[in-house]
Amino acid sequence: MRNIKLTIEYDGTNYKGWQIQPNAPSVQEEIQKGILKLTGEAVELNGSGRTDAGVHARGQVANFFTVSSIPAEKFPLALNSLLPMDITIKGSEEAADDFHARYSATGKIYSYTLLNSRFPSAILRNFAYHVTYCEKLDIDKLNKASSYFIGTHDFCGFMAAGSHVKDTVRTIYDINVSTDGELIKLTYQGNGFLYNMIRILTGTLLYASIGRIPIEELPEIIKSKNRVRAGITVPACGLSLEKVLY
Amino acid sequence: MRNIKLTIEYDGTNYKGWQIQPNAPSVQEEIQKGILKLTGEAVELNGSGRTDAGVHARGQVANFFTVSSIPAEKFPLALNSLLPMDITIKGSEEAADDFHARYSATGKIYSYTLLNSRFPSAILRNFAYHVTYCEKLDIDKLNKASSYFIGTHDFCGFMAAGSHVKDTVRTIYDINVSTDGELIKLTYQGNGFLYNMIRILTGTLLYASIGRIPIEELPEIIKSKNRVRAGITVPACGLSLEKVLY
Repeated sequence: MRNIKLTIEYDGTNYKGWQIQPNAPSVQEEIQKGILKLTGEAVELNGSGRTDAGVHARGQVANFFTVSSIPAEKFPLALNSLLPMDITIKGSEEAADDFHARYSATGKIYSYTLLNSRFPSAILRNFAYHVTYCEKLDIDKLNKASSYFIGTHDFCGFMAAGSHVKDTVRTIYDINVSTDGELIKLTYQGNGFLYNMIRILTGTLLYASIGRIPIEELPEIIKSKNRVRAGITVPACGLSLEKVLY
Repeated sequence: MRNIKLTIEYDGTNYKGWQIQPNAPSVQEEIQKGILKLTGEAVELNGSGRTDAGVHARGQVANFFTVSSIPAEKFPLALNSLLPMDITIKGSEEAADDFHARYSATGKIYSYTLLNSRFPSAILRNFAYHVTYCEKLDIDKLNKASSYFIGTHDFCGFMAAGSHVKDTVRTIYDINVSTDGELIKLTYQGNGFLYNMIRILTGTLLYASIGRIPIEELPEIIKSKNRVRAGITVPACGLSLEKVLY
């Protein structure tokens, strides 16, 4: 058996998320169907992690085992011809037998895009969260608020209810804030993220930047492990899994 | 009667173009339906020009006459709440009685976006033309080829068949080539453009940059007024009407 590692881009708008589920379109299912057509094998595709409905990826990673003799580097072209246009395979390579897209990952990079404009954008409607809290978000405050989250913390208060993860300690290596006209991109790099953590972190940074949460209380709020003290969960559309680190 | 000027952004993917037509969705029809709901008036919306199926706009301009007393600046918010998410009104103002979005225009700015990457992009599939002619397009050659088109020329050979325009002389003020990673954006500024002219110009610049059309023959090709000697008509998805000049 050969172990094939795929790098995948998708527009998550029309999917109920990465993970296969009954009666709902998923990215995993589409790719598994493509592999079935290509190789005749009903494989189980291991993703690096789930992404929710409407969340995008420019660098999702997944692996599967195959007995086919298709050269590893041929999978993108072959699969892209079988996949819907909103999913594209960007790379593939043969991986070590013990490589697992999820368990071998050492970290992830996500981006969250805000559109800070008076009116919404037709073109970016599925790829940015339209923020109208104030005319111009304070980038210095966003940066200052971000700095409190960098490092190793118990992010229990920044996790969606209903998650059953036991170890809620995570390390955030970096949060980068960049701007391009009315777009603001927050790029998070960490060793892993809890369910909805980036969306809650972004909602908290937003609230801190407009004074709805006092910036100096952020360390206390993290320590409190109380979801209610954090900010809102911002919408899925602004979120993209940019890269998985191994 | 008041004359209202609207500035409009749209994702043209799901429309058969700007212009209203039977049995096909159009941007003009959606906005006229919105105005009807808002004011009770069945207006005729004058666009600055048609855009084809799949072509986008970040700065289309249109005007209409109304007897309603809604303040001019209130139209964006009111109409956006009635329009589909892929059309947004970005601005509105009261215009002079004799303002006409098409006849008053003195020029237009269009952009055409190329994605020069090995594999297609799921996220940009509707907003860039995936170019695989060569691994890396030569930006210097694109710039050099562009320079031959700047100025006043008879662009008869760069117009789609079936157009009945008589005066085919147009002035191009500038063609700017900019890059952002694997994206290449060509921005055209001119006093007006013929039917499909930007898409044929872009196809010609592409062919010239890869040597399929000799760059030094471009002046001759323009003079020949022969559509067959120009390059291909590149797809609609890469094209966006950025701004209308008055």
